[in-house]
Amino acid sequence: MTTALFPGSFDPFHNGHLEVVERARSLFEGFVVAVVRNPSKREALFDVEDRLELIEACVGGGVSLVTTDTLTVEVAREVGADVIVRGVRAVSDFENELQMAQMNRQLSGIETLFVPTGTSYSFIASRLIREVARYGGDVSAFVPEPVARKMKERFGG
Amino acid sequence: MTTALFPGSFDPFHNGHLEVVERARSLFEGFVVAVVRNPSKREALFDVEDRLELIEACVGGGVSLVTTDTLTVEVAREVGADVIVRGVRAVSDFENELQMAQMNRQLSGIETLFVPTGTSYSFIASRLIREVARYGGDVSAFVPEPVARKMKERFGG
Amino acid sequence: MTTALFPGSFDPFHNGHLEVVERARSLFEGFVVAVVRNPSKREALFDVEDRLELIEACVGGGVSLVTTDTLTVEVAREVGADVIVRGVRAVSDFENELQMAQMNRQLSGIETLFVPTGTSYSFIASRLIREVARYGGDVSAFVPEPVARKMKERFGG
Amino acid sequence: MTTALFPGSFDPFHNGHLEVVERARSLFEGFVVAVVRNPSKREALFDVEDRLELIEACVGGGVSLVTTDTLTVEVAREVGADVIVRGVRAVSDFENELQMAQMNRQLSGIETLFVPTGTSYSFIASRLIREVARYGGDVSAFVPEPVARKMKERFGG
Amino acid sequence: MTTALFPGSFDPFHNGHLEVVERARSLFEGFVVAVVRNPSKREALFDVEDRLELIEACVGGGVSLVTTDTLTVEVAREVGADVIVRGVRAVSDFENELQMAQMNRQLSGIETLFVPTGTSYSFIASRLIREVARYGGDVSAFVPEPVARKMKERFGG
Amino acid sequence: MTTALFPGSFDPFHNGHLEVVERARSLFEGFVVAVVRNPSKREALFDVEDRLELIEACVGGGVSLVTTDTLTVEVAREVGADVIVRGVRAVSDFENELQMAQMNRQLSGIETLFVPTGTSYSFIASRLIREVARYGGDVSAFVPEPVARKMKERFGG
Repeated sequence: MTTALFPGSFDPFHNGHLEVVERARSLFEGFVVAVVRNPSKREALFDVEDRLELIEACVGGGVSLVTTDTLTVEVAREVGADVIVRGVRAVSDFENELQMAQMNRQLSGIETLFVPTGTSYSFIASRLIREVARYGGDVSAFVPEPVARKMKERFGG
Repeated sequence: MTTALFPGSFDPFHNGHLEVVERARSLFEGFVVAVVRNPSKREALFDVEDRLELIEACVGGGVSLVTTDTLTVEVAREVGADVIVRGVRAVSDFENELQMAQMNRQLSGIETLFVPTGTSYSFIASRLIREVARYGGDVSAFVPEPVARKMKERFGG
Repeated sequence: MTTALFPGSFDPFHNGHLEVVERARSLFEGFVVAVVRNPSKREALFDVEDRLELIEACVGGGVSLVTTDTLTVEVAREVGADVIVRGVRAVSDFENELQMAQMNRQLSGIETLFVPTGTSYSFIASRLIREVARYGGDVSAFVPEPVARKMKERFGG
Repeated sequence: MTTALFPGSFDPFHNGHLEVVERARSLFEGFVVAVVRNPSKREALFDVEDRLELIEACVGGGVSLVTTDTLTVEVAREVGADVIVRGVRAVSDFENELQMAQMNRQLSGIETLFVPTGTSYSFIASRLIREVARYGGDVSAFVPEPVARKMKERFGG
Repeated sequence: MTTALFPGSFDPFHNGHLEVVERARSLFEGFVVAVVRNPSKREALFDVEDRLELIEACVGGGVSLVTTDTLTVEVAREVGADVIVRGVRAVSDFENELQMAQMNRQLSGIETLFVPTGTSYSFIASRLIREVARYGGDVSAFVPEPVARKMKERFGG
Repeated sequence: MTTALFPGSFDPFHNGHLEVVERARSLFEGFVVAVVRNPSKREALFDVEDRLELIEACVGGGVSLVTTDTLTVEVAREVGADVIVRGVRAVSDFENELQMAQMNRQLSGIETLFVPTGTSYSFIASRLIREVARYGGDVSAFVPEPVARKMKERFGG
């Protein structure tokens, strides 16, 4: 019985995130997505409640959802996760994620596994999507349908 | 019931490899190490039989061993593996592994998960160990004890 | 008849930018430099009008200048550009630029070509130049003469 | 009138190569593909004549083909090319290509432009395709149809 | 008589910093640590005076300490340093440091030497330590004892 | 009294190597260049004796020369070096050099310092120079004058 934790800001939840869920969920008995509240980051697109709702609309069954405003290793302990999963697309992701994985292991003994995201999604970053949406660009190719609809409501485009 | 496949040349099996086994084995119900025969690479240190024996001496129970001279995705199919695991230490590893993961997924649908290896092992590469051993250098800090003993028998030092 | 668009903040326009213009301009029939207004970035060194004027003083003929506060793909559409050109100096540039190129292609079908900047300019970044200038350091080795003069007026040094 | 040169081994010509041709060809008046004979590399899959024939079958009109066994800058001079184009997929590609671009510029003054290859092709490398084909794997997802047919003839699979 | 300058924010001074001092100090006759006041960075953990005191408590003899709020090359001139030393852990560090080294050399002729930090410290970054400490996580494995004590006083945990 | 060791194949000794010597020599009391005999690498351009002679003709006084066919840490011990110096130009260099530095430190306790090579030399690699020279290209912009003369004798061009 292994439970995996997939933490992130998910602002917004995009096709690359969805791909991590779909690829990794079946490999573990339990799969928990943790939405980080992340108060320090300016300019959130959606509040945590909206993000939770959108993820729920995208991922279907077999996935639990929690929100958090503490360290990832604390969330892992609370939900009983044995392993953290993170998507990696690019070299710059990789070094950052490697640092966090090493620190999380040192802090709590929990391991991190990296899921390489598919080539079609390698250029998707939440930051770029937020920027395009703010200028009224059409981001529907980069996000699941429920997210695209919500973004259209909010930003037009 | 998820089974993981850990393929490699393991020439020699070093502390970084051992660490991948120890970190990932408990996360899956089955764990298979596949030793690639790899006839094209010149200058093998140990033949496949020696490598198998050394891995067996290092990893203890809960791990199956196979040898192979075909594509990784074929081995995965034969042993019924659901996922491939690979260690990643550094950026140069990462890009290479990402390419192979994407190709293996395209060829067979099988996913690859990356295990970040611990900081103490980030400088270990089989190639460097072979080179040091050939010059009579002492590699016992980089390989498990059974491998160190065998290398001493063969190369002195 | 191919027209290229070279977008950027150009705050300030430095020798690396000038080099991209000089290398790429002759390869295309039309060449447009677009100065991004970029209101979100704090601490602009020069306002957009100054930046335009300085670029004009540096690049000579055969180059059109526009300002913009929208998405790059929109500017490309407006000026009738067939291709975006961007300078790349270093690995960290490259990944970022690759993401934007892929997103711009997805948004509009427009291609991006990368111009490798010459070795003498590989360490020049506008951010570093701004920092050195603010401390009164001499940046005249990194920027064209008209920019150096303007920076001296403003910051002394 | 700008002519671009796209040099490579093309052993085999794959979808990533085809993508560079299709993206860049329309941006230049002339477009020349140069197949490097490359005698030093062991284990060619196809000889130069086969490679030429396959490229011709894949690229359609508007592209000239030459073979060469000299320096790229020499070929550029001979065919009257104003610029070299190269595809870049990944960071490891990029550094290598940057070195060659800088050396070619120093040797002859000719510029190089990089074409970022699309996300669907980012994992394709001729070396991996040759390896998969030799083991009888199916590479038809990675190469244009004429190449796939020829590889099947030669390697089965 | 060669004197080395080791500049940084040191907010906080961690085991990776201490390692640079211990590795490099014996190679030079003089060794100066310069604490950059860095007013632009928001959210300092400790003020400069606290940082100085903590470094003094960690490094023992043979090291001089200064504070600065100017360019590194100015400090080097003031303290008579012949060379700047900087720790490098990872690829992302490396490119940034390379840029600064090239700019500092251009500004003043002073060279920079990079000290590769040991594998046990490769995941330590001041930014991550500040983040963990703010959430009440235990950072005592990442910083020298005097820093750990001071952080406990301030943040609990 | 600190002595530095600068090991390499130096086949050929190029401007990037010369730059490391010139930048680092004055920072240490002793400076030893060690030419690695390197029998395993195919296709040496010059034999070790020629390489020694060329380095001697390029570097002037204050530098000792040795040849070696053993591990770098052994040479360091024999010549009494306190530190190894290596040039780093690019990210791909850096990771490789980091691995070797970590292994050398583990094998013998000796530190390695990296000298960032200047921007004008960042594209020079012995491998590329050998390739250009074999095709009769003019490499005199990339190597010191004595090496250029010797290469002309041997390869024409």
